[in-house]
Amino acid sequence: PLIAILAGDGIGPEVTAEARRVLDRLDLDLSFDEALVGGAAYKAAGHPLPPETLALARRADAVLFGAVGDPDCDRLERHLRPEQAILGLRKELGLFANLRPAKLFAGLEDASSLRPEIARTIDMVIVRELTGDVYFGAKGIRTTAEGLREGHDEMRYDEAEIARIARVGFETARTRKSKLLSVDKANVLETSQLWRDVVIEVSADYPDVALSHMYVDNAAMQLVRDPGQFDVVVTGNLFGDILSDQASMCAGSIGMLPSAALDGQGHGLYEPIHGSAPDIAGQGKANPCAAILSAAMMLRHSLDKADAADRIEAAVAAAILGGARTPDLGGTLTTRAMGDAVIASLG
Amino acid sequence: PLIAILAGDGIGPEVTAEARRVLDRLDLDLSFDEALVGGAAYKAAGHPLPPETLALARRADAVLFGAVGDPDCDRLERHLRPEQAILGLRKELGLFANLRPAKLFAGLEDASSLRPEIARTIDMVIVRELTGDVYFGAKGIRTTAEGLREGHDEMRYDEAEIARIARVGFETARTRKSKLLSVDKANVLETSQLWRDVVIEVSADYPDVALSHMYVDNAAMQLVRDPGQFDVVVTGNLFGDILSDQASMCAGSIGMLPSAALDGQGHGLYEPIHGSAPDIAGQGKANPCAAILSAAMMLRHSLDKADAADRIEAAVAAAILGGARTPDLGGTLTTRAMGDAVIASLG
Ligand SMILES: CC(C)[C@H](C(=O)O)[C@@H](O)C(=O)O
Ligand SMILES: CC(C)[C@H](C(=O)O)[C@@H](O)C(=O)O
Repeated sequence: PLIAILAGDGIGPEVTAEARRVLDRLDLDLSFDEALVGGAAYKAAGHPLPPETLALARRADAVLFGAVGDPDCDRLERHLRPEQAILGLRKELGLFANLRPAKLFAGLEDASSLRPEIARTIDMVIVRELTGDVYFGAKGIRTTAEGLREGHDEMRYDEAEIARIARVGFETARTRKSKLLSVDKANVLETSQLWRDVVIEVSADYPDVALSHMYVDNAAMQLVRDPGQFDVVVTGNLFGDILSDQASMCAGSIGMLPSAALDGQGHGLYEPIHGSAPDIAGQGKANPCAAILSAAMMLRHSLDKADAADRIEAAVAAAILGGARTPDLGGTLTTRAMGDAVIASLG
Repeated sequence: PLIAILAGDGIGPEVTAEARRVLDRLDLDLSFDEALVGGAAYKAAGHPLPPETLALARRADAVLFGAVGDPDCDRLERHLRPEQAILGLRKELGLFANLRPAKLFAGLEDASSLRPEIARTIDMVIVRELTGDVYFGAKGIRTTAEGLREGHDEMRYDEAEIARIARVGFETARTRKSKLLSVDKANVLETSQLWRDVVIEVSADYPDVALSHMYVDNAAMQLVRDPGQFDVVVTGNLFGDILSDQASMCAGSIGMLPSAALDGQGHGLYEPIHGSAPDIAGQGKANPCAAILSAAMMLRHSLDKADAADRIEAAVAAAILGGARTPDLGGTLTTRAMGDAVIASLG
């Protein structure tokens, strides 16, 4: 299988290199090809997502992504900014299902701002829709009748988009506790009302999964109050963006958490949830665990190598339990040394 | 001055009664008039916001609001549901500025899910725009070219709407630490890009206030990681809905926090941030502090009686510090007894 490595900006290359090293240890018959993306691609080729990069991502069996974001690019026109690369990849590759696990790793109880006894209960997956919603609806700046500038972005979902992400939610729930929570704002939004109606319709095919619903404002409260109540959560692109970042931080493990963006046919893009962290780039301070765990998700979801994925995940857990800590976790290990610790735990 | 009492559903009447009792103790020359709102109004008059209720709210100098929400009404058509009453009041009265303070009361360190040393640092005000955004844009269910149901809600703000809430943000910042954080999603949304541009334009009139910006997903993370970094936050209706509930829960004081919805000319609606809590309604278990503190905000913002407001706020703080606790705070006081404790502390 061919893996596209899009390491991107900031700490992206450093952490992706460690993920690559871990994969190399496992004799998986993978080949790798690299391409520029984000600010790095803009600087070299004038566009954050050059055609060659998109072509490689399409051709590959899976994409291992680092991070994009570069302060030098903040003043560019929107379509040239690094973030457009990841939005473009999601849309072009049809990666509609974003799986974002959030859990606390044993040994990291003190990394969370939550009380340890509450933080310890966090073990959830947010299934976020990734190619619709207010992210991709009609948008722009127009002039009102009074001559005022007006910004607008349309939130929208059709029933097919809702049903396909709902199915990913129900299927994911079946691999865990057979509980699915759908988050919306149906008391205010028509898009949410349709979302809720369609999720209920789809639930007829999953009688074994217990479905419930929560408004997004209440979900943001409950994630702080009692995060252990959550298992699998399905929600739209915007609410998923907010709640998944909040959940990761509740778990105190922003440098530890991977994500997958899937097209429903096994093709996927895998990336750490952390960003490019330009302030520490190139210093060997970044925690590579999220990138390494993203590689594990890739093995499981795109390459049908669940055993290898389990081995990597167990190795990361063992390294952490054994005390391996990068600076974000209060330790002094370099990025490379943390990679070594994981490799040493591979067994 | 005439105060409209719209006690509403669930625990609304119980907590509002205690706020009224506290006001009665202060010899403020207030008169009161009551009207039905929410599910209670629907049941009695067929509409959650009957014309007489709206007329009273307009006529009054300020509105003291309890809560709306009634499980009996969940299956009604949208325009008849209790929530429409509060959305209608905001829109009809032009209450565009929602002030939502979040702080931890001394003595309640253990009520937060956050570590006490982090929870203790929370003392912020969220200034939420309340009459625009995706709440009030064009919305509905339409049929796509493929014959699919599609839900849509337009997010929108014009520059005048943004500028007027930005000014409330800057003015609020001046009464505190002269720091204003504007939260948006300008990397994805055109509405947010205009929001950011206009906030920056308005900042020219407030050179003494330090302005910064944050994306909403990052704000949701930072509110958990280090809530003490926030002082005054200005944001749109939807992001404000989510972040203010999250911030309240971080402060652990969902039963303690008031809010104000202002029209910019001194007219306002004051309500606890908690909901109608139908499960404990009528049992004397509700915490009246949020309603009492809402009355204090009313005195300050609509009635130019800051001294009386200070007295009420000090009395609530003293009662809490003295150990007065309703069940939500781990105690056994009834709603009435908590009201008594506050009155006893009025001094
Ligand atoms: C960079 C940004 C456009 C992106 C998003 O909002 O989806 C990021 O926050 C994420 O969650 O992957
Ligand atoms: C009840 C609901 C419509 C309302 C809102 O979303 O504004 C509530 O959550 C609030 O924050 O006052």
